[in-house]
Amino acid sequence: MMIGLAASAQPPAAPAPRRPQMAAAQSPQVRADRRVTFRLRAPKAGEVVVSGQWPNGRATMAKDGNDVWSVTVGPIEPGVWEYSLQVDGVQMIDPGNPAIKPMREPRTSILHLPGQPPLLHDFQDVPHGVVHEHTYFSKSLNRVRELVVYTPPGYEKQADARFPTLYLQHGMGDNQATWVVHGKVHWILDNLIAQGRARPMVIVMMDGHAAPRGPRGSESSTTAFERDLLEDVMPFVEANYRVKTDPAGRAIAGLSMGGGQSLTIGLNHLDRFAWVVGFSSAVPSREAIADTLNDAKATNEKLKLLWIGCGNDDFLRRRNEEFISLLKDKDIRHEWHLIDGNHSWPVWRIYLGDLAPKLFQ
Amino acid sequence: MMIGLAASAQPPAAPAPRRPQMAAAQSPQVRADRRVTFRLRAPKAGEVVVSGQWPNGRATMAKDGNDVWSVTVGPIEPGVWEYSLQVDGVQMIDPGNPAIKPMREPRTSILHLPGQPPLLHDFQDVPHGVVHEHTYFSKSLNRVRELVVYTPPGYEKQADARFPTLYLQHGMGDNQATWVVHGKVHWILDNLIAQGRARPMVIVMMDGHAAPRGPRGSESSTTAFERDLLEDVMPFVEANYRVKTDPAGRAIAGLSMGGGQSLTIGLNHLDRFAWVVGFSSAVPSREAIADTLNDAKATNEKLKLLWIGCGNDDFLRRRNEEFISLLKDKDIRHEWHLIDGNHSWPVWRIYLGDLAPKLFQ
Repeated sequence: MMIGLAASAQPPAAPAPRRPQMAAAQSPQVRADRRVTFRLRAPKAGEVVVSGQWPNGRATMAKDGNDVWSVTVGPIEPGVWEYSLQVDGVQMIDPGNPAIKPMREPRTSILHLPGQPPLLHDFQDVPHGVVHEHTYFSKSLNRVRELVVYTPPGYEKQADARFPTLYLQHGMGDNQATWVVHGKVHWILDNLIAQGRARPMVIVMMDGHAAPRGPRGSESSTTAFERDLLEDVMPFVEANYRVKTDPAGRAIAGLSMGGGQSLTIGLNHLDRFAWVVGFSSAVPSREAIADTLNDAKATNEKLKLLWIGCGNDDFLRRRNEEFISLLKDKDIRHEWHLIDGNHSWPVWRIYLGDLAPKLFQ
Repeated sequence: MMIGLAASAQPPAAPAPRRPQMAAAQSPQVRADRRVTFRLRAPKAGEVVVSGQWPNGRATMAKDGNDVWSVTVGPIEPGVWEYSLQVDGVQMIDPGNPAIKPMREPRTSILHLPGQPPLLHDFQDVPHGVVHEHTYFSKSLNRVRELVVYTPPGYEKQADARFPTLYLQHGMGDNQATWVVHGKVHWILDNLIAQGRARPMVIVMMDGHAAPRGPRGSESSTTAFERDLLEDVMPFVEANYRVKTDPAGRAIAGLSMGGGQSLTIGLNHLDRFAWVVGFSSAVPSREAIADTLNDAKATNEKLKLLWIGCGNDDFLRRRNEEFISLLKDKDIRHEWHLIDGNHSWPVWRIYLGDLAPKLFQ
């Protein structure tokens, strides 16, 4: 594709900079009726498949005379959908699409089809918050880490206000960027706040993988994560953002692995977090939260909300139901939400939309 | 890879969430001596090659008994290097590596090897600025766009200060995120400011592709970009950040396609930008900046700095030299910098480090 470089109606002085080495095939191409064409140039491949999160999402592509494989699917319903290409069995992102799901091992692209009218996770014409990226040196982990912070609309202008803070964790395959880039947490909150349904809040998203990759020592990942959270990230956030610092002004939530981290750390630190949440969680063991379970009176006095949700087709449903039975058995006050869906982001976006209006009220 | 989920020394209640569907091969693995191993699992591939930006960067990988292709190369010098995998001729990111160069057609991974002592573009133990991400609706382009803004260390605390602003553009294959994620502009500025060599400044990075993809109308991309910059982005930045609004407080710079945009827009709007910069630029035509060329006295009075650089192996060198001849012929005051290197990010990081200390002085 050539890009013109001259101003107004003047001809450019010379051709635009070099074209990409391999002429790319437009992908994805979204049509007005939400049918979508995927393309990949792969002269030597024997089989190319697109595998999407939408219903019946697997489609085999066919090769044309220019060695471009393609397939048109749909119409696909509005949503934020994951998909991958599989080229002779190698799962990869769609190199035609700059929207990539942030992952430790990036093999997944994002197809975002906005709704008409817009959905809760779509960008809408409302006041918007700001997403901040920080790199910091974690003294407790002795290495450089990344941190993402959302501030709500109006944060900058309300110089005297202090905001409640949600610490929000991702799952095992993801990283600190996934809740924004793929979860659309910033737009969900912008929309809920504009509707008067959620309080303006700061949201902090850490890299949940606190233990380095490769051979591990004796310390569990959750313990390492807890140290980074309590000793590095919370002091950093509370020094650099205008946030409340009492437990009623702090929530901790997460999904899957991050749900396990949030339930474990939250329930062991009710002096810091009065709002504790798990989505599709790898729930903690009974032993890991023994003190909390064994003193229901103190626990219920400190907890503003213990919110637990899971999809009814989630592979962690049974473990979550056992955890709920344990809470009931111990008389720990909680909310249990079981909805349609499996272990996937469409469920987690719904949960965030359900949860956020309850926080800090 | 299993991740432990229980706190402290307690055993977890159950196994961690599911493993990725395809067991991944660790890639890249960086050894203490800066030799690097690249790996990819690809059972059906006939040839897998790693192609890196470092000297002699092409290396053919070999397959082991587990269908994992690998090769060990180097030692590689410290730097921020681009590389791709080529699987039977399909160029792709390394799916083992979450560091991806932000591009319109993402096929390139990042291998960042910090120096010892650290290099100017490495994260160092100095005060750090903040990178902000905004989504905005561009009225002039009638669509949703992305914007990245760097604020320097201390910006939040100096509530009464107003900062100069650098509008910094990327090249044709890149997007608004590339200067931070791959260019390391934030760390270069943090380090220069800590050394007392650059003034604290706000840096604004737009998506340079203002015209939608696909069939284009009669308006050139630079003209569309100019409208978005002048009518949407500058008002947004000046309403939401504490920045100076006189021409001496604004610079415009860019590389390649972005250098063409910056020279064209900057030299046609010296009432807005007194500092105008092009790195390896797709330089504007004589006609596109005719008014500026034809009144050297007025131009030289308004310009604080016109800075132009190019690598001596750059395919745009000749066009830049012709542009310099034109400026000389018209008596337009400027600086011309020719350094070793081709049309690539190592040159542009060096240029940013050379340029930033001269801005707003």
